[in-house]
This record gives sequence, C-alpha cells and structure tokens, in this order.
Amino acid sequence: MSKSFDDILAKLKTASTKKLAVACAQDEPVLEAVKLAKERGIADAILVGDKDEIERIAAGMGMDLSQYEIIDVKDTVEAATTAVQLVHDGKADIYMKGQLDSKTFLKSVLNKEVGLRTGRPLSHVCVFEIPGIDRLLFLTDVAFMPYPTLEDKKVIIEYTVNVARACGVECPKVAPLAAVEVVNDKMPVTVEAAELTRLNEIGEIKNCIVDGPLSMDLAIDPSAAEHKAGAKDRKIVGDADILLFPDIHAGNLTYKTIVRLATVKNGNILTGTKAPVILTSRSDSVEVKLNSIALAAVVAEEKNL
Amino acid sequence: MSKSFDDILAKLKTASTKKLAVACAQDEPVLEAVKLAKERGIADAILVGDKDEIERIAAGMGMDLSQYEIIDVKDTVEAATTAVQLVHDGKADIYMKGQLDSKTFLKSVLNKEVGLRTGRPLSHVCVFEIPGIDRLLFLTDVAFMPYPTLEDKKVIIEYTVNVARACGVECPKVAPLAAVEVVNDKMPVTVEAAELTRLNEIGEIKNCIVDGPLSMDLAIDPSAAEHKAGAKDRKIVGDADILLFPDIHAGNLTYKTIVRLATVKNGNILTGTKAPVILTSRSDSVEVKLNSIALAAVVAEEKNL
Repeated sequence: MSKSFDDILAKLKTASTKKLAVACAQDEPVLEAVKLAKERGIADAILVGDKDEIERIAAGMGMDLSQYEIIDVKDTVEAATTAVQLVHDGKADIYMKGQLDSKTFLKSVLNKEVGLRTGRPLSHVCVFEIPGIDRLLFLTDVAFMPYPTLEDKKVIIEYTVNVARACGVECPKVAPLAAVEVVNDKMPVTVEAAELTRLNEIGEIKNCIVDGPLSMDLAIDPSAAEHKAGAKDRKIVGDADILLFPDIHAGNLTYKTIVRLATVKNGNILTGTKAPVILTSRSDSVEVKLNSIALAAVVAEEKNL
Repeated sequence: MSKSFDDILAKLKTASTKKLAVACAQDEPVLEAVKLAKERGIADAILVGDKDEIERIAAGMGMDLSQYEIIDVKDTVEAATTAVQLVHDGKADIYMKGQLDSKTFLKSVLNKEVGLRTGRPLSHVCVFEIPGIDRLLFLTDVAFMPYPTLEDKKVIIEYTVNVARACGVECPKVAPLAAVEVVNDKMPVTVEAAELTRLNEIGEIKNCIVDGPLSMDLAIDPSAAEHKAGAKDRKIVGDADILLFPDIHAGNLTYKTIVRLATVKNGNILTGTKAPVILTSRSDSVEVKLNSIALAAVVAEEKNL
C-alpha cells in the first residue's frame, strides 16, 4: 500500500516504463518534469510541439534531447490533436499538458475521433501526502466538476477508488464530506452522502467503504473521532482515504488551504478518461508535475480508469 | 490593530472589565476559562446553574468561588433564560454557553422577552491566528447559517466588519471566496461575489474593501497573487482579513482543515445578537473558550454588533 509518493515511486520500479505524449512541450517546467521522470525510470516521453522552441529551452536547461522522440507541430490545436492521438492509438500511455491553455487541451481530450473520452463525465483527483497524516489522501473533485449530482458522485467515487487501488489502497475508505455528520433534510448534501453510503452497503458502489455524511474532523482526525459522541461506532474514525467534496467551492477552498498551510507533496490527474491525463496548471511546481506523472504511471499500470 | 490574540488581550488591558453571564455553568472547561478570564482581568462572571454541581467541580479544580455571583437554577431551560436575561437587562455584557445543548441555548438567545435577538439573522465568526500569516483571519460563516442568500451575505459582511473593527482592523479587506476568481454564470457563487463587490463600490457595504470572487490562494497567499496573471491589479492580493464562504459546507470543511493542519489560536462568537454570545462546543479547548471570551470582550467594548 502506497502511503507516500516515495512508495508510489518504489512501486513503479517493478513496473514497465510508461510513455508520455506531451502536447506543446515547449515549456521549461514541463520539460524539467519529463526529464526527471525519465531519469527515475518512471516514463519516457514523446514531445509534440514547436521543435525549435523545445530545442532552445532544452539547451538552456542542459537537457539531452537525443533520448526523446520529437514531433514538430507548431500549431497548438494540431499539436494537441497529434499528441492525444498517440495515446488513443496506444503509442503512448499518458497524455500530458504542456504550453497551451486548459480549454484547448481539454477539447483534444474530448475529441471524438482521436481523444480519450469514455462517454462518462470527466472528473479530477488530487492526491496529497501531508506530514502528520499516515497515508495518502485522495481529494475529489476540487478542480473540475462544479456541482456533481448524486449520480456524478457515484461515478466520481468509482473513479477515485480505482486510482486509490492503483496506488495499492485495496479497500479505500470514502468520506462524503459535509459541515455536519448527521443527515439533515435542510442540507441536501447530507442526504446525498447518506444515499451514497446506502448504495455502498447494498453493493452498488464497490471495492470501498463509504461512510457519510462526515465532517472533516471525523474524516481525518482520529482524536476527534475518539472524543465525539457516537463517532467511535462509525466505519470511518479519522482514517478516510478518499475525501469526496460537496461541490467545487468546498473542494477547491479546502485544497488551496492545505497547500497554503502545510508542507505537502501532491499530484493530480483527470479521471473518466480512457488513459491517464495530466492537467497540471502553470503555477504547479516541477515536483507537482513529477508526482502527477508518477500517479498517472501507477494508474496506467493498472489500466483501471 | 490586533494581529494576534495577544494583541486583543493587550487591547483589553485599557478597557473596563466585562461581565459574563454563563448558562449552566456546571462544566469544568467552561469554569476553567471563566477563571482564566478573571485572572487576566478580561471578565468577571455570574454563574447560573446547578450550584451544588458548580461547587463540586470548582472544589475539584481549586477554583475560589467566593469572587463570583452564583444563581442557583437547576432546570436547564430556566437557567438559560435567567442567564440571558442578565445580559438583556444590562446586568452582564456577554452571554456564554455552559453545560447545555446548543438548541436550548439558542432558544434562549432568540427568546422574544428576555433574549438578545435583533430581528436580523444570526451568524457566526471564527477568528484565527495562524503561524505564517501576519494578521488575524475572520472566517464566516463556518458554523451557523447553512446557505446564506445574497442579502444574508451583505448582512454577514456587516457583522464581521464590525467584529474586525472592534479588534482594531479599521478597514478590513473582505474576500467573497469561490473556486475561481472570475465571474462564471454557471457558478452563482461567483455572480453573488461580484455583486457584493459592486455594492461595496457604490457604498452600500461600508467600512471595508470587498473584492470577489476570489480563490483561497489569491485571498491569503501574497506569492500566489504575485504570480497569477491579473492578480496584482486586484484590491486584495493575498492580504484578505475576512474570508466569506459560499456556504456552511465550504466554510466548515476549510475551518476544520485549518484546525487539523496548523497550530492555530482561535476564538469565535455569534453575530447578529444585541450583545456578544459565546457558543463554543464541548470539543473546544479551554484556550478556545478563553480566546472567545477575549473576542467577545473587545466586541462588547465597541458595542457595535
């Protein structure tokens, strides 16, 4: 079971080397992450984009390009289409965003001919390693789907459980979060959380233990679970693996609070795609990009998106 | 300007000593906080509740009760009514919850004859002192009002601005938070945040600077504001004082994440009442209760609820 990004990297040592297809690879932090991923034996890469620019940037950072296949496509949309098709056709395992805007990148992911759509909604999982918490936390959806319905949440849980299992967490504990830990008819989020719990109990949500609604302290703080009346009898007692947020505002505000206040490691990938897709933002560090590649690689190894 | 709870305590040294009315004071952590508040010259207290129990608990903790007025009322509802009336009648300045459930306590706050209702909605502010952040953060509403409307949010801002001003923050910066920092018609929260900003600009929300929608990083992380395109030209650049949450789920999940991950000091009071009301929960430490008394005392000093 991976309890850290180091565990994920260790797990990858026995896996076959994966291949990235990078759209518009002319971006220094992206090339830096690609280089590190190769050095650590996680993934090779096919660099699609403006070859002159890629060479110029690589020279500046002392990166040896002779080990990479480069496909010279100057146009952004064409570069994205070319790169995503490599994954669609099985010539690469992971699709990664480079120097292009998210909208154009996502259009290529959803391209009907050469993209990676499954017909199911796209979502997103962010994986955190936080000092003082003895396991990885899988947060969803903090970045992509604004207002998931009950049906969406069921699907999101399934996606995220598969990512957690790819990281070796065989039966992840899933906490549908809310402000409170009891059902309150005036708070639809709590009613949905209870319904997700029931669906898990009757076997309609598999390979995990769902227990909601849960407040954040009962989800991730064992001492809170110890002290709160009735909390000890729950299925999750401060030991949740997957944190399912009510909506993107709750998710994103919590996510950014964690990044601001704790010294964390994190990585993230899209879910609901045929192959792992890395959609990191420009503000993400090289380390976040590398962690995301490692995460995508373990998921590609399991191929259970 | 108070940048910490120590600053608030220092500010109180020049203020008159306030008086607490405690409902059902037979509770050790509450008595401990009451004792510390007296020792530090913040507040005296009238203890309303089961006198035998109060004496038994005080003896066990070595608390000298001779310095306190005790009103012996065994019945919970009657004790709450008695205690709140002391504040209503001006015999005490701050109403504090002891050993009774929140529902009964709130009923007494809202009592039409002897309570502290103003005719406006009740809300809640939580004040955090967080290492690495050079000022107090005022979070609202993370505990009380589930789904504030636009009108509610306007009122909540007014309440919280008054609390911040009582703490010496003369013109607080208010961040209506969301997952994103641009208006998106598909996210009503962002539309409301922009409207609150406009209302501030035309003078309908006073004594503060409102700038929303804002993501958490732009609200509290100056380096994020430094790096994000367009962020430098905003009125808030990582230096928000007041964090206005979209709803109670986003607020409470963020609040509990902060408590779990950072070594914080915090205190909180109800807002929208005629006098400060302390509604801490059983799981709050003595320190949180004491900080809440200090916060209530500075607000009582300003009397601008």
